[in-house]
Amino acid sequence: MASTSGLTIPCKAAVAWEAGKPLVMERVEVAPPQAMEVRMKVKYTSLCHTDLYFWEAKGQNPLFPRIFGHEAAGIVESVGEGVTDLEAGDHVLPVFTGECGECAHCKSEESNMCDLLRIDTNRGVMLSDKKSRFSINGNPINHFLGTSTFSEYTVVHAGCLAKINPLAPLDKVCVLSCGISTGLGATLNVAKPKKGSSVAVFGLGTVGLAAAEGARIAGASRIIGIDLNSSRFEAAKKFGVTEFINPKDYDKPVQEVIAEMTNGGVDRSVECTGNINAMISAFECVHDGWGVAVLVGVPTKDAVFMTKPINVLNERTLKGTFFGNYKPRTDLPSIVDMYMNKKLELEKFLTHRVPFSEINKAFELMLRGEGLRCIIDIDE
Amino acid sequence: MASTSGLTIPCKAAVAWEAGKPLVMERVEVAPPQAMEVRMKVKYTSLCHTDLYFWEAKGQNPLFPRIFGHEAAGIVESVGEGVTDLEAGDHVLPVFTGECGECAHCKSEESNMCDLLRIDTNRGVMLSDKKSRFSINGNPINHFLGTSTFSEYTVVHAGCLAKINPLAPLDKVCVLSCGISTGLGATLNVAKPKKGSSVAVFGLGTVGLAAAEGARIAGASRIIGIDLNSSRFEAAKKFGVTEFINPKDYDKPVQEVIAEMTNGGVDRSVECTGNINAMISAFECVHDGWGVAVLVGVPTKDAVFMTKPINVLNERTLKGTFFGNYKPRTDLPSIVDMYMNKKLELEKFLTHRVPFSEINKAFELMLRGEGLRCIIDIDE
Repeated sequence: MASTSGLTIPCKAAVAWEAGKPLVMERVEVAPPQAMEVRMKVKYTSLCHTDLYFWEAKGQNPLFPRIFGHEAAGIVESVGEGVTDLEAGDHVLPVFTGECGECAHCKSEESNMCDLLRIDTNRGVMLSDKKSRFSINGNPINHFLGTSTFSEYTVVHAGCLAKINPLAPLDKVCVLSCGISTGLGATLNVAKPKKGSSVAVFGLGTVGLAAAEGARIAGASRIIGIDLNSSRFEAAKKFGVTEFINPKDYDKPVQEVIAEMTNGGVDRSVECTGNINAMISAFECVHDGWGVAVLVGVPTKDAVFMTKPINVLNERTLKGTFFGNYKPRTDLPSIVDMYMNKKLELEKFLTHRVPFSEINKAFELMLRGEGLRCIIDIDE
Repeated sequence: MASTSGLTIPCKAAVAWEAGKPLVMERVEVAPPQAMEVRMKVKYTSLCHTDLYFWEAKGQNPLFPRIFGHEAAGIVESVGEGVTDLEAGDHVLPVFTGECGECAHCKSEESNMCDLLRIDTNRGVMLSDKKSRFSINGNPINHFLGTSTFSEYTVVHAGCLAKINPLAPLDKVCVLSCGISTGLGATLNVAKPKKGSSVAVFGLGTVGLAAAEGARIAGASRIIGIDLNSSRFEAAKKFGVTEFINPKDYDKPVQEVIAEMTNGGVDRSVECTGNINAMISAFECVHDGWGVAVLVGVPTKDAVFMTKPINVLNERTLKGTFFGNYKPRTDLPSIVDMYMNKKLELEKFLTHRVPFSEINKAFELMLRGEGLRCIIDIDE
C-alpha cells in the first residue's frame, strides 16, 4: 500500500464550475476509497464528446460543480475494503460503465450492460454512500460517470476498473477506455464482418474511425465512409476507408446511393453519429438476406426510428451496441494486447497532446472539430 | 419416365374464376414441363392463409382465373430439359420460393431469398416463356406462386422442389412446404433460443404454433403465447405454450405486461400476426442486453415500424425472416427427417381432412377460424 493509503489526498483537479465555462485548476481533496472502491493516480486522460456534451449541458439537467473526464489510464494508489483483484501499483483503465460480475447481464455471454454499474450520467456521487469523494474546503464536487479523470487522483468503483498489461504505454492505451473501444467493438463484436465483405460507416469521428479500424482488422475489402464533412475523408484513408459519400452531394437518400454502389447493399453498417436519419439510412443500406446494421450513436430523446417492415422481413438485422459490447474488466485487457501486438493501430487516433494545465485547449480543439483524440498529460 | 411424359395431361383442378367465389372443379390440360421445369402429381395439399388472401383479392390486383395452392406434397411425373437432380418417381415438396443455387443469396450461408425464384405473387405464368402450363379449351389459367397445387398435376420450376425421404407420409409432410416451416425456422434458425430460456410468440395460428413448437424443441422453459383470441389458448398447450396473454385483458401495452412477468423481458420473441402494433410489441418485449425479436408476419403496405432508438441501443436485436430462413431444396429434407425422427410433431397441426371434391370446405373452415391445417386429399 502507498503511504497515502487511508489518508485524504490533496491534489490538482480541473473543475467545471458552470456549464460551458472553461475548467478551473483547483486544489481538491480526494477522500480514501470506501468498500469496493479504488483510488487511482490518473496518468493520462483524453477528452470525449460525452464530456463536452455534459459540460455544455444544453440538453440535460446541469450538475455543477463537477469534475469531468472518463477516458483515461492510471495506476492504483490504494483499494477499499473487499477489493481483492486489484492492488496498489496495478495499471488500470477506468470505464464509465462497469462489470459487477454478479448480475444477469454480467452472467450473460452476450450483454455488457451491468445492472449495478451501468452508465448513469445524472449521478454525481459514489454508489455506496451517495456521497462525493471530492471536496474543496469541505464542499463536495460532483463526480462524472463514476470516473472523473480530470484530476490527479480519483476514486472509482472497483467494478469499473480494468487491470491491464503493465508494459502498455498509458499515454496510448488511455483512449481505449471509451470511444475507440466503442467503435472497434461495434464492428468486431456486433457487426462481425467477414473477410472480403463490404462495410459502411456512418460518421467519421473517432468512434466511426474506430469502427472502420475494426472493419480493416476484420479484413473487409470495401469500407465506405459517410460523413457530411468531406474534409474528413483524406484522414479516414489511414483507417482503411476505401470510398466516401457525402450525402449532401446527392439528391436521393444515401441508402439508395450505397445500394447502387454495392449491387443491392453493404454486408454490414455501423452508425456512429446518433442522427436519426443516419440511423435509418444505416439500417436500410444493408443488403437483404444477410445485412446487419449496428447502431452506436445516441440520438436526441425525441427521435423515433422508423422503417417499413418489409426492410426487416427481407432478412435484415438491426442491432444496438453499448461500449462495443465489451465487458469492461473481462475484455479491455485483450484490446490492450491487440494494440501491443500491433494488430490495432492507436497512434493514428492521437492527433494532439497538451499538459494538464492546458486542458481547456482540448475543449477548444473539439469544439472546432479539429483532430481526433487530444491526450492530456496529468503530470506535465 | 412415365408414359405420360412429353404429353399434355388432362386432369381435375379446382379453378378460382372470381375473387372470393367458391372454386370450381374443372377439367384442365397440363402441358409438359419445359427446360428446368418438373411436372408433378400432387398427392396432398393444404390451405394456407396466403391462398385465402389472394383468392379474396381485397388488397391486390386480382388475377383470375387462377389455380391456387402452394402447401403440398407429390411425386415427380416427368422432368424437362436440364433437370438432373430429380426424376420421375421422386417424392417432392413444392415451395412458393426457390433455390437456384447460383445467385448471391443461394451462395450466402445466411440468406434463402433466391434472386431468380423469390416469391412473386403477381406472376401467373412460368418464368422461362412467360406462359401458363394450364389451359381449358386452349385458354390459359393463371398459376399461383409457381406451385398451383389445387390440381391433380402441376408444373413447377425444378428450383422450387425439395426431394424428400420417400418413406415420409405425404399426407403429413405436405404441411412442411409453407407455414409450419416458416414458424419453426423463425425460432430454430433465427431466434435460436437457448435451452431454459423464455420465448414470447405473438399469434397462435399455425405459423405461431409452429414457432412455439420450435421453442419447445429448443428446450425453452417458458413459452408465452399472445393472442387476441383466448379460445386459442387451450389448444396451444399441446405446442409447448406455458403461459398466455390476451392484450385485451390489460390496460397497458403488452410489452410492459411481459416485462413484468419476466423480470425485464423475454430472451426471444417471434411475431407471427403481421399486425404492426404486435411487431413493435414483439421487439420491445425482449430483454435488453441479449433479447432477439424475429418478425415473420407480413403487415399491410402502409404500416411503419416505429420504436425509440434507445430500445435498439440497449443491445436488443431485431431480425426478419422469410420461410424460416430455410433454403427450400437444401433444408426441407432435414425437416422431414426431424418429423420422421419424432422430434417434430406434425399430427397436432392436422385438424381437418377433406377429399379434393370438397376443397371449398377447407376455405370455409379457414374463414370461420376453425382448426389449423386441413389436408386435401387430391385422389379421394
